[in-house]
Amino acid sequence: MFAIGEYKERIQKTKERMVNQGIDVLLITNPANMNYLTGYDGWAFYVHQMIVVTLDGDMPTWIGRGMDANGAKVTTWLDHDHIIPYTDDYVHSTIKHPMDFVCDILAAKKLTNKKIGVEMDTYYFTSLCFERLQSGLPNATLLNSTGLVNHVRMIKSDMEIEFMKRAGKLVELAMRAGIDSIEPGVRECDVAAKIYHAQLSGTEEFGGDYPSIVPLMPAGKKTSTPHLTWTDDKYKDGDTVILELAGCYKRYHAPLARTIVLGQPSAQVKELSDVVIEGLNEALAIVKPGVTCEQIEEKWRTTIARYGYVKDSRIGYSTGLNYPPDWGEHTASLRQGDKTILQPNMTFHLIPGIWFDDFGVEISESFRVTETGCETLADVPRNLITKIADIPNIPFAT
Amino acid sequence: MFAIGEYKERIQKTKERMVNQGIDVLLITNPANMNYLTGYDGWAFYVHQMIVVTLDGDMPTWIGRGMDANGAKVTTWLDHDHIIPYTDDYVHSTIKHPMDFVCDILAAKKLTNKKIGVEMDTYYFTSLCFERLQSGLPNATLLNSTGLVNHVRMIKSDMEIEFMKRAGKLVELAMRAGIDSIEPGVRECDVAAKIYHAQLSGTEEFGGDYPSIVPLMPAGKKTSTPHLTWTDDKYKDGDTVILELAGCYKRYHAPLARTIVLGQPSAQVKELSDVVIEGLNEALAIVKPGVTCEQIEEKWRTTIARYGYVKDSRIGYSTGLNYPPDWGEHTASLRQGDKTILQPNMTFHLIPGIWFDDFGVEISESFRVTETGCETLADVPRNLITKIADIPNIPFAT
Repeated sequence: MFAIGEYKERIQKTKERMVNQGIDVLLITNPANMNYLTGYDGWAFYVHQMIVVTLDGDMPTWIGRGMDANGAKVTTWLDHDHIIPYTDDYVHSTIKHPMDFVCDILAAKKLTNKKIGVEMDTYYFTSLCFERLQSGLPNATLLNSTGLVNHVRMIKSDMEIEFMKRAGKLVELAMRAGIDSIEPGVRECDVAAKIYHAQLSGTEEFGGDYPSIVPLMPAGKKTSTPHLTWTDDKYKDGDTVILELAGCYKRYHAPLARTIVLGQPSAQVKELSDVVIEGLNEALAIVKPGVTCEQIEEKWRTTIARYGYVKDSRIGYSTGLNYPPDWGEHTASLRQGDKTILQPNMTFHLIPGIWFDDFGVEISESFRVTETGCETLADVPRNLITKIADIPNIPFAT
Repeated sequence: MFAIGEYKERIQKTKERMVNQGIDVLLITNPANMNYLTGYDGWAFYVHQMIVVTLDGDMPTWIGRGMDANGAKVTTWLDHDHIIPYTDDYVHSTIKHPMDFVCDILAAKKLTNKKIGVEMDTYYFTSLCFERLQSGLPNATLLNSTGLVNHVRMIKSDMEIEFMKRAGKLVELAMRAGIDSIEPGVRECDVAAKIYHAQLSGTEEFGGDYPSIVPLMPAGKKTSTPHLTWTDDKYKDGDTVILELAGCYKRYHAPLARTIVLGQPSAQVKELSDVVIEGLNEALAIVKPGVTCEQIEEKWRTTIARYGYVKDSRIGYSTGLNYPPDWGEHTASLRQGDKTILQPNMTFHLIPGIWFDDFGVEISESFRVTETGCETLADVPRNLITKIADIPNIPFAT
């Protein structure tokens, strides 16, 4: 947990955005935003829950399932009278819905005629949540506040940066465990097991939290697509393997991708990885405060165009605090049209993967924007990693 | 993947429910339901995607992000012309929304004036999804079909039961790894690392998939609440520790909870665990086809009432195939008022946890309803597990 002063500062910044957007009451259902404002942690987001922020209140209110109220008491800075549980018959019921309970609480607080912000495009705020609020609050104006708190989160505090650097250390360990254990004849699930072990056991000084995405590790032809997990299949000689992993420290992430070849890479994999690395290097080289997200993408695009390559998807996104299913912040993307101006202590995952019908390459870096440029969060050689029998692995800088 | 015939049977059952509910077109956004009908697998549910089922079509259509289309080709039984990708500028954008693209596809298929079912209370189907569909399909009738496919999933095929038994074997290994490694002075994160390693590396015959919930493992006073994950804290002599884990085989789960005491349990923990175990045993003893969910809960309730205990939350739920954030099926719950009649090959997690302000106990079983009763999916001693220095752990039956 952070110092209470840091939480209060976050709430102050949230309120400033609420004022700008004409919102009196903000219902926060995004688990990362709930954590950001209160410290609330735990795997309870599979039931409906929220944090209520009002312009004239100093302390937000947690509303959630009864059995999770003690979890809120343990993990947040909220007074116990700001923790309001609902009974269990609201859980996964087709009769009662937790948002009906929320309406009752808002009525008791005399907030039913306010301008109420809801995170309309957030996982876990379902369309039924919205419908129940709408019918239970006929005098309220419901406004879409998706991303309001996410944007507050974009510029990290020094403590948050420290957490992300620890996450960077954790992903170094996880990536090393993965690279070391991928061999012909080894099952993918056994590599996943070793990656997880490294991610969580971490270092003597600190362990790891669960990353918001499990190890993504397509192999062979499946490298034609980025989001496949592991199977019981065994790696084969000549396989290309993509590892996209993150370290996670107290919910803060440092993602990283590398591509490994078991043997000598084919000419096409070698060429593609050379292009990806050059584009990545060129893009990283121009990162500094004042540059826009789309300028970084443009640098990438023009670099790879020299070799005749085109990538039609974004090359990265802001990252940091999050819960499953994503470690992205859903604010800025590194792509055409995104005019977000980089500022110190913004953090991004720059992941310019390219996938063809039979193969693909991902080589990425997570970085922090510094006062003058950027620094990467993890220190793993930025190469296509080739593993050839009887030749020791590349040394790590750690 | 299952045989194509099994997928077609699932779709046939889905269509029967569509007819009964007056639905012409079903938009499936629940990742478990997408997998169930097509085999689609991968960690892409952090962007909007869906399966479209029409009453008059034999094969559903996948709509998702461009870079995931190859994932759909690899993991589903769908022809490639039933896999429709959207461009990347729809991803996490405040300008374009994937549901606008879906509306265009439905228009091309001449489905815009139909009765269209949407899963309104499903994670990942956000309220903005609904709003965009509503405004893009003014001549359609949107109906809430939350749970429609979930209910088809409740009765498992023989192959699904085999997958869940494998998951049961995996959770035995994970629970044993957890129990064996919890000791005074050991960090919680190191135990989590060992649990994950066991869950995923599994046996020589098969490995494990990622469970939809990470290990829940509150210790000490934090056992007053069920959904806390691990920290870097070290276990202390005398700690009570709850482990709620699952094994997962190809997305099918067998959850299990046990409570461990490092040393001699206090009188209150011993008494509570005795009551929980007796209630659990009594409840399991009456399980058979024809019994209702609420009858099982009633048996539990009257059993623990003899000792003066009351539990105000449900004692279990149907389980099986799922994706984060939950391994429950969101159909039947073991609680008052749930009149679901048990049938062979339904599967449940019976988890009668009781939490007080300072401590709690969870001891659970996952079971399959058989023709005459039930069988549990994992074989771990149904005890309060006490670990006393220099005394070997209880033997496992595995």
